[in-house]
Amino acid sequence: MYTYDYLFNFTAEVFSKMGCPKDDAEKIAKVFMAAELRGLSSHGMIRIKDYYQLWEAKRINIKPNIKIVFESPSTAVVDGDGAIGMLAATRSMEIAMEKAEKAGTGWVSTRGSNHFGIAGYYAMMALEKEMIGMSMTNANPLVAPMGSVSRMLGTNPIAVAIPAGKHKPYVADFATTPIARGKLAVAEKKGEKVALGYVQDKDGNPTDDPTILKEGGSMLTLGGDYEHGQHKGYCLSTIVDIFSCVFSGANFGPFCPPSVAYLPVLEQKVGEGTGHFFGAMRIDAWQPAELFRTKMDKWIDTFKSAKPAKGVKKVLIPGEPEFEKEEKIKKEGIAVIPAIASDLEEIAKKLNIEFKLSD
Amino acid sequence: MYTYDYLFNFTAEVFSKMGCPKDDAEKIAKVFMAAELRGLSSHGMIRIKDYYQLWEAKRINIKPNIKIVFESPSTAVVDGDGAIGMLAATRSMEIAMEKAEKAGTGWVSTRGSNHFGIAGYYAMMALEKEMIGMSMTNANPLVAPMGSVSRMLGTNPIAVAIPAGKHKPYVADFATTPIARGKLAVAEKKGEKVALGYVQDKDGNPTDDPTILKEGGSMLTLGGDYEHGQHKGYCLSTIVDIFSCVFSGANFGPFCPPSVAYLPVLEQKVGEGTGHFFGAMRIDAWQPAELFRTKMDKWIDTFKSAKPAKGVKKVLIPGEPEFEKEEKIKKEGIAVIPAIASDLEEIAKKLNIEFKLSD
Repeated sequence: MYTYDYLFNFTAEVFSKMGCPKDDAEKIAKVFMAAELRGLSSHGMIRIKDYYQLWEAKRINIKPNIKIVFESPSTAVVDGDGAIGMLAATRSMEIAMEKAEKAGTGWVSTRGSNHFGIAGYYAMMALEKEMIGMSMTNANPLVAPMGSVSRMLGTNPIAVAIPAGKHKPYVADFATTPIARGKLAVAEKKGEKVALGYVQDKDGNPTDDPTILKEGGSMLTLGGDYEHGQHKGYCLSTIVDIFSCVFSGANFGPFCPPSVAYLPVLEQKVGEGTGHFFGAMRIDAWQPAELFRTKMDKWIDTFKSAKPAKGVKKVLIPGEPEFEKEEKIKKEGIAVIPAIASDLEEIAKKLNIEFKLSD
Repeated sequence: MYTYDYLFNFTAEVFSKMGCPKDDAEKIAKVFMAAELRGLSSHGMIRIKDYYQLWEAKRINIKPNIKIVFESPSTAVVDGDGAIGMLAATRSMEIAMEKAEKAGTGWVSTRGSNHFGIAGYYAMMALEKEMIGMSMTNANPLVAPMGSVSRMLGTNPIAVAIPAGKHKPYVADFATTPIARGKLAVAEKKGEKVALGYVQDKDGNPTDDPTILKEGGSMLTLGGDYEHGQHKGYCLSTIVDIFSCVFSGANFGPFCPPSVAYLPVLEQKVGEGTGHFFGAMRIDAWQPAELFRTKMDKWIDTFKSAKPAKGVKKVLIPGEPEFEKEEKIKKEGIAVIPAIASDLEEIAKKLNIEFKLSD
């Protein structure tokens, strides 16, 4: 088990050693650590290696000039200049909130970025400013449009964070596929099959084989099959892609650049880098802030009072499980599995810093 | 088969006879007819009876004072004053677009409204103004939060319309449940079972019984079960509920007023009427309009070129099937099934107007 501080400082040091200014390195480390605290370790320490390797391959810009390239009173297009996604995204969400201060709401579409970690982090930035936050991103194309076998979409997540009063905020953060890709990898390692509705083979037939992506298969959008609303997941995923990439001029759909160095740079570009979309709405753009908080508390109380199904302990509000995990992890520390710890040790050696194999 | 004009004029006359000003009656008729043209007859002529009966029961306000009650440069809360939903919604979307003219984007949350018909209509209003449109609404509570057996949410649809250039616009319009409630009624009439993942019984067990709502059952959110992402559908449905009702001060979740007169007015209120949410974004708040259209065309071309799965003729863009239906229905006329035609004839008689039983 590691303490938050130890891993935060280590992560910031890694990015400092790559050449990031101290302030940038800390902004980046914050997002990695938020993933660990929220129990989403698939987007935490494990991903440092990906960024390290992209840096080694000179595929990210460590000293980017992140700037607004087009704007209106409530919107901006931000060019990330090839930055680490966490930096382009943090700055973009700040701009969305600056716009919202004046216009009531602010909306930013970002191009020229890279993988930004957990979507929920940026949506939750708004909470500190008495705002509702939203964030979306496109991602590596592994998902097929409905009725197709071409990999054209990412797991394209959507996050929405809404402040409350006495209650913890409402935080939804979900991919527009039934599962994250990581679940396929876990099933493969365990030699297990997966449920139908996650993936299809190269001809579009349903399959329970978690290794099928290696044989030309693809992931399916939320809903899984037409009968269960796959077309709705297809709509959601494409909305994320268009808002993030067509609005900003990023590489949409199948052209999203790989977030790992072992995949080659794509030959065809239709824009700049990866795309994201952010939104911020002042709660007092809707009602006096105190009234808004009271109403949101009442909404949460109502849904908490829903009758649980047989065998269910309590009905959850979106975000509640992650807040519970955060509390537990803050107390007990952060676990890093040996394989990842040893990757981090190796990176540390190359950068001439230190990583303790256990704490 | 009826012509568009015949049914449009009839519908407008029905609402005129109820006391709506001519202009209002025509606005309402437009939404009913848009549903028929898009092949969504579940939200077309069949629903006139519901509004007629709500009017008879004095549960709607025919001469409402629809107005802004709170605002910022890019947001407004609109009070529909108990209006027919189509009127409150049309005016709210107009306000969203007026805000967007100045601020780049405009966002409206509406309370004191009623059932507004098809969500897609309002999102598509933005297309004529070179804007991206969005609309959402809460609805009769029939859907359970994840892990619960309480009916607390509606089928809460989301619609997004995005202009293109040479191509038809992108139009997504979907409920946040795997199916619309109407599908259960159809299965019941045919004496058929439904797929698992649509409904659960009163204890939360999966069932294929389409009549289960009558025995304390409930509908499930998109995803159907946890393994297939039911929590994501729960997030989507609650986002719609909060944006539509908490933002505006409408009756959220289980307190949504019934859209039919045969269900009693609820005893408990937590706000005013039904709630909706609308958004408008100028395409030139993101890029010069012509560039936006070109990029969107390129996006559509890319997804149209996706390889179809075995047995699939072509990969569809959201909205494409409805545009094809519209073309066909405009040519061939609108079918009204005998049971609905006879309901309309009865309403016509009571209002002292005429409805031909066949055309």
